[in-house]
Amino acid sequence: ADINAGKAKAAVCASCHGADGHASIPTYPNLAGQNAGYIEAALLAYKAGQRTSPQAAIMKSMAMPLNEQDIKNLAAYYSSLK
Amino acid sequence: ADINAGKAKAAVCASCHGADGHASIPTYPNLAGQNAGYIEAALLAYKAGQRTSPQAAIMKSMAMPLNEQDIKNLAAYYSSLK
Repeated sequence: ADINAGKAKAAVCASCHGADGHASIPTYPNLAGQNAGYIEAALLAYKAGQRTSPQAAIMKSMAMPLNEQDIKNLAAYYSSLK
Repeated sequence: ADINAGKAKAAVCASCHGADGHASIPTYPNLAGQNAGYIEAALLAYKAGQRTSPQAAIMKSMAMPLNEQDIKNLAAYYSSLK
């Protein structure tokens, strides 16, 4: 996975999850230091429509355009943050 | 919310999410320091059947017996960890 490519893709994530992966909104998760494998699983679940709460609709729309490599890169980037 | 009550309830969570909220299995999320509001939302979503990936089935069965106060206590406990 390419952490720098993940960082570039993450620009759109920052408004909710924070520029440093610490969410500015307490009902949203911090991503900094999260396990990459879990971030990948979560993004794939959103993309596959396997998370269906009202809040999940936002993340589904974010995950839809991501391909498998994007997801691996984003996961590696957030996992690398402290 | 009662952090000590949350800690007591969390005994069953530790085998996957770690005794200190750092998951021993990389496809599972760390919970230490996660936003309490997000942990609550996630547990409620599991309980409501709004997360339906194969992996989510485990968490649905864990969340089902929790009441609203249990969920607030667990969220406060994990959020308090570093």
